[in-house]
Amino acid sequence: MTSMTAAETGRPVLRVAQVGYAFMGAVHSHAWRTAPRFFDLPAVPQLRVLVGRDSAAVSAAAARQGWEEAETDWRRVLERDDIDLVDICTPGDTHAEIAIAALDAGKHVLCEKPLANTVAEAEAMVAAADRARERGVRAMVGLTYRRVPAIALARRLVAEGRIGQIRHVRAQYLQDWIADPQAPMSWRLQAERAGYGALGDIGAHIIDLTQHITGELITGVSGAMDTFVKERPVADSATERGQVTVDDAAVFLARFSGGALATFEATRFATGRKNAIRVEINGSAGSLAFDFEDMNVLQLFDASESPETAGFRRILVTEPEHPYVGAWWPAGHGLGYEHGFIHQVVDLVTAVAKGDEPTPSFTEGLQVQRVMAAVVDSASRHSVWVGIAT
Amino acid sequence: MTSMTAAETGRPVLRVAQVGYAFMGAVHSHAWRTAPRFFDLPAVPQLRVLVGRDSAAVSAAAARQGWEEAETDWRRVLERDDIDLVDICTPGDTHAEIAIAALDAGKHVLCEKPLANTVAEAEAMVAAADRARERGVRAMVGLTYRRVPAIALARRLVAEGRIGQIRHVRAQYLQDWIADPQAPMSWRLQAERAGYGALGDIGAHIIDLTQHITGELITGVSGAMDTFVKERPVADSATERGQVTVDDAAVFLARFSGGALATFEATRFATGRKNAIRVEINGSAGSLAFDFEDMNVLQLFDASESPETAGFRRILVTEPEHPYVGAWWPAGHGLGYEHGFIHQVVDLVTAVAKGDEPTPSFTEGLQVQRVMAAVVDSASRHSVWVGIAT
Amino acid sequence: MTSMTAAETGRPVLRVAQVGYAFMGAVHSHAWRTAPRFFDLPAVPQLRVLVGRDSAAVSAAAARQGWEEAETDWRRVLERDDIDLVDICTPGDTHAEIAIAALDAGKHVLCEKPLANTVAEAEAMVAAADRARERGVRAMVGLTYRRVPAIALARRLVAEGRIGQIRHVRAQYLQDWIADPQAPMSWRLQAERAGYGALGDIGAHIIDLTQHITGELITGVSGAMDTFVKERPVADSATERGQVTVDDAAVFLARFSGGALATFEATRFATGRKNAIRVEINGSAGSLAFDFEDMNVLQLFDASESPETAGFRRILVTEPEHPYVGAWWPAGHGLGYEHGFIHQVVDLVTAVAKGDEPTPSFTEGLQVQRVMAAVVDSASRHSVWVGIAT
Amino acid sequence: MTSMTAAETGRPVLRVAQVGYAFMGAVHSHAWRTAPRFFDLPAVPQLRVLVGRDSAAVSAAAARQGWEEAETDWRRVLERDDIDLVDICTPGDTHAEIAIAALDAGKHVLCEKPLANTVAEAEAMVAAADRARERGVRAMVGLTYRRVPAIALARRLVAEGRIGQIRHVRAQYLQDWIADPQAPMSWRLQAERAGYGALGDIGAHIIDLTQHITGELITGVSGAMDTFVKERPVADSATERGQVTVDDAAVFLARFSGGALATFEATRFATGRKNAIRVEINGSAGSLAFDFEDMNVLQLFDASESPETAGFRRILVTEPEHPYVGAWWPAGHGLGYEHGFIHQVVDLVTAVAKGDEPTPSFTEGLQVQRVMAAVVDSASRHSVWVGIAT
Repeated sequence: MTSMTAAETGRPVLRVAQVGYAFMGAVHSHAWRTAPRFFDLPAVPQLRVLVGRDSAAVSAAAARQGWEEAETDWRRVLERDDIDLVDICTPGDTHAEIAIAALDAGKHVLCEKPLANTVAEAEAMVAAADRARERGVRAMVGLTYRRVPAIALARRLVAEGRIGQIRHVRAQYLQDWIADPQAPMSWRLQAERAGYGALGDIGAHIIDLTQHITGELITGVSGAMDTFVKERPVADSATERGQVTVDDAAVFLARFSGGALATFEATRFATGRKNAIRVEINGSAGSLAFDFEDMNVLQLFDASESPETAGFRRILVTEPEHPYVGAWWPAGHGLGYEHGFIHQVVDLVTAVAKGDEPTPSFTEGLQVQRVMAAVVDSASRHSVWVGIAT
Repeated sequence: MTSMTAAETGRPVLRVAQVGYAFMGAVHSHAWRTAPRFFDLPAVPQLRVLVGRDSAAVSAAAARQGWEEAETDWRRVLERDDIDLVDICTPGDTHAEIAIAALDAGKHVLCEKPLANTVAEAEAMVAAADRARERGVRAMVGLTYRRVPAIALARRLVAEGRIGQIRHVRAQYLQDWIADPQAPMSWRLQAERAGYGALGDIGAHIIDLTQHITGELITGVSGAMDTFVKERPVADSATERGQVTVDDAAVFLARFSGGALATFEATRFATGRKNAIRVEINGSAGSLAFDFEDMNVLQLFDASESPETAGFRRILVTEPEHPYVGAWWPAGHGLGYEHGFIHQVVDLVTAVAKGDEPTPSFTEGLQVQRVMAAVVDSASRHSVWVGIAT
Repeated sequence: MTSMTAAETGRPVLRVAQVGYAFMGAVHSHAWRTAPRFFDLPAVPQLRVLVGRDSAAVSAAAARQGWEEAETDWRRVLERDDIDLVDICTPGDTHAEIAIAALDAGKHVLCEKPLANTVAEAEAMVAAADRARERGVRAMVGLTYRRVPAIALARRLVAEGRIGQIRHVRAQYLQDWIADPQAPMSWRLQAERAGYGALGDIGAHIIDLTQHITGELITGVSGAMDTFVKERPVADSATERGQVTVDDAAVFLARFSGGALATFEATRFATGRKNAIRVEINGSAGSLAFDFEDMNVLQLFDASESPETAGFRRILVTEPEHPYVGAWWPAGHGLGYEHGFIHQVVDLVTAVAKGDEPTPSFTEGLQVQRVMAAVVDSASRHSVWVGIAT
Repeated sequence: MTSMTAAETGRPVLRVAQVGYAFMGAVHSHAWRTAPRFFDLPAVPQLRVLVGRDSAAVSAAAARQGWEEAETDWRRVLERDDIDLVDICTPGDTHAEIAIAALDAGKHVLCEKPLANTVAEAEAMVAAADRARERGVRAMVGLTYRRVPAIALARRLVAEGRIGQIRHVRAQYLQDWIADPQAPMSWRLQAERAGYGALGDIGAHIIDLTQHITGELITGVSGAMDTFVKERPVADSATERGQVTVDDAAVFLARFSGGALATFEATRFATGRKNAIRVEINGSAGSLAFDFEDMNVLQLFDASESPETAGFRRILVTEPEHPYVGAWWPAGHGLGYEHGFIHQVVDLVTAVAKGDEPTPSFTEGLQVQRVMAAVVDSASRHSVWVGIAT
């Protein structure tokens, strides 16, 4: 066993089942294991069951990742009384079915992003979350970058009025892992599994982050998309080739509810950029800039400073005053990618234990889905502006 | 007198008249004075006449900036036999009239950007340049950032195939000098003088630079524009307010002729960004990135490097091997804003003396104008895609 | 229980006792817990006993940090048969006694740096390690920054000859946590507990790192030290003040065995620098630069590149080809401070299981101690050069 | 003729003779020509005579650089009534003789750094400057980096108390132009011409800059020096080799008069660093950092900011509020290396015209010379501390 126990802590346990154990599942498992070691949680997560289709593989993963049991059918887990929460780390085409069933079975749900592959699925999930809420059952979508301390600090500064009225948002999520035309097919390149390509996988994050930081919503978009490499080799096959049915890149203009003019870009063809989530926000009182490739830093320009000494400040977001940071290392000792997931567990467990609504809610996930659908719609109609009801 | 003389150098002189002596005129004067001091030019510029409407002011400026004579009517200059070239540094609404008259009078012309305030004017200017060319008279538009060494190096690297097939272009020209709603009116905020706002003043540069570096043309755009502050105080008046009739910011998506997907943004509301001309280009073989706020640097990512040691290289573009740099200081001793103008003089004088066509030609200036017109057209029609004939 | 079990994994266990549970102990615990979750270790660490003097506190920490038992006397732990390894995370004045006793009791030892507070203690510890080695018992000193991937990559590149003959080393470890004269006393400011101040706490790291990366030893130094604030308030006392008996800052010149000329600086008074471990190495074939405040990056200059495109490359050390990184996240998803400790566990467990000598050895720790003693000696004798036998 | 004339301006002229016309002479000529074009000077420099030993070469240079006459013997220039100021741009071994003779002949003198090759020469020059001062004749040493706007701003901020009590100074001047052992001999590598090597050529600058910025003096040093490559090929000879008789690199520890502990390094073997003049200053109230490879930027950390938003600010020193900048381009349009020389002319001409003492004085130049001599002395005596009388 891995988990802290109720006996050890005198606190209630939160019994978790996780569906999926690949890269994303491993990060989630690490977060479940680690959160109570550094944060004083009102309930202690117990890593009860890991679920996957391949029996041998899921058993090995359960041992490796610290789960008490392995299971091959997620439906069986929903029937058990000893599971409080289901964490869904599978591809997008399975989210709706699992999440709705879990919520209806009275399990709290954490669902990886994008919430679903279509707006219709996402709407059904919101309906299930609404039904569940009435019974005290909670639902949250996993847009973890919100919990990177520099991003949480950015939101705080905007909320405090440090940036003023927002005029511009520019956001890019740049990767390059399929820039090589010989990079093989994967489920992420198939529309029936992944829904969208770069737009859904990484574009969803910058849509959410910019709305989260600004506290505003996107009200309309004009988009263009492309698939640069339409056919790719199939791994482990000398001759077979697969069709890429999702976008390699998506760009769009947008308006925010406060009037800001924005540009967005999501691509996996930005050679040399590995995980460059870049957000810059310009307001009447100041500006903010962030790049995940230097994730412990937030840049702040304060327009109230004297022109003689004004300049973008490189805030090293590692001080105890910064969001989440007090639980970790001394100043200057940076955090890594996984910390966003640990903070997500902290906030989710806290909300569930206290009976609060965790954020981002499924409704927020649906809104991100609607923005993506509007981009696709616009791109299919000569980039004409498409409004998004808010 | 300021100029080097033919007697001193044994080389022919090129007798210059310059129209305009404000900020842009001062930079041009510095370039005319300085170019022959550091470069071996085939002809020596002679600063013969400075032209401006206010007699006292232009006389003072002529003395200050090193011109032999001052003149208040540019038409009289065109009638003189002792002027070879007319350099036009006035607001855009006067470009067409002066340039066409000068070319028709047999004077070579250097005309500041944007070439004109409308496509129609620009077309008339191209026609004049075509007529003039047959008589050996040359025309050039002043898109000086092309001659920043880091930009010239970027173009060279693309031409050598170091970047491969270009997938993405992202370009921003960010300033903040009117982010404050109390910043006063100026001719740059009036459509009848300036034509466009941010789009024409600074957007023109990134349209030109990205096409210049890539060697490709923009084939279509989807645009959005806004005027955030519609009314501003009039300088030297306690109560009067003027209407801002140009765009404060313009954003657009674009396609390049080779298929690249692009985003552009030109704004004067990016608080804290002073003159951030940012261009990033991602290709199948590598990437380039530039920011004018660190103007002596070009970033290069070479995808052929081993993943173990690949990374964006900060090339300090101050080596004798770099474009234009050999004439200046030792490695590591940076150049400034004015050097682009000096290099422009070098290339123009060389072309004129050798009977070559200088670049960028008026035709290139017209094409930039067409892109801008397409952005405005798209922005006025719900951002629908507008093609640009190439 | 936290640990993976032998039954789960089919691999032998390595039963660990850890002495100390404050900041450094918490990081070590995290490393013991986490290493087997991401790396295939030949033995599985079992978190058997946590040791501390305060019974209630150590029990709470054991529960929190995942240890099976708590214990107040480290001597009792040495008498137990079910402990294979002792991890010492206490202040430096206790290192020698615990480590020597543990090694003599046949326990493998991991000892935090600095190895000891004096050269004499460190020599006794080396003697104990030598005795232990003959019985197959291993000793390692915890200079964890060696295991930051960017540092490990730097060492690899030097070893491959990419830097050539090393001419210069410049190393700084800059913090600012006592720059404020009102920052309170702590054991780190008392010579009897900490040995040295900035020199021992942080200077030890840059001495080790530069020797580790270059594969060379420091052969002599010229040093100067100072205590800027000699008296400080005592925490929880309105009036009491304590004497600072260690150095606030230490600077020294050094020679490396290959002839390189070096400068070193360790200070806690570098206002605004939080954990800036900066190492730059210049060689005949290239240069390397690192700053822990951007810990996932290594800068490389390769002098064999054409001057046209040469430049410092910002290598994002997050590729599977990089040391330790393959076990973690996709490219571009950064690691944090704790990963160095996890990698330390990986290498130590592997060495112990395979019967290899782990590094850095106590002998290496002693050599670092000798360099520090030479700095102190030089500083006390007008900075005269003091050689270090190698 | 190049110069503005008295008739043009109504202001008195300052008639200049310049000795030397190579790289440094060309920069000085540019400064003399350009300063009155952008600044309102109380007197207008007239480029009367350029002096060099080779008649043909100096005549060509005079035409190129804008001087009215050429001359081969500097002594003849001192006899002329129509010369007010002598600007000495020759190697260090000639400075004392020319400067003393010029001052004694009643000419104002601008002398390039280092002031002289020995302390004795520098003392004689100070004596000459003292004699001259009584007759209203002025002397200035050319430590031009003081006039880089970012450096001038740094000094201003220290003087205003923004940095508080200074604890640390770290300064490096890094170049790499002789890192290649096959780089040929030059006069800069010969002790009889250059005096010192890296120490005098580039080390002099960081000694001066740090004292200038802090307003404090260096009171003692501990130094080490080396000549890595002792023999080099002679240019234009297949077989001849010359002996390098100066230092390739010099490092030293230092104390400032206010108690700060400092490290210095001057080297031409820092592969990849082209002209990296790096100065960082840490004080009780804040810190400053500068790197000439990004010369339009000053980094400022203000310790009075809230920890939540404190960070090093990247001040783009291109605002009208910044020293010297108001005369140049709009915000964000950077300056280059030559601007320091232009500002030097501005300050010198202003001081001479107003009868003020220009700075840095020969006395300041002598003090820099004494620090260098102390470094050499210390390096020759096992790095023992050597005090400098202040």
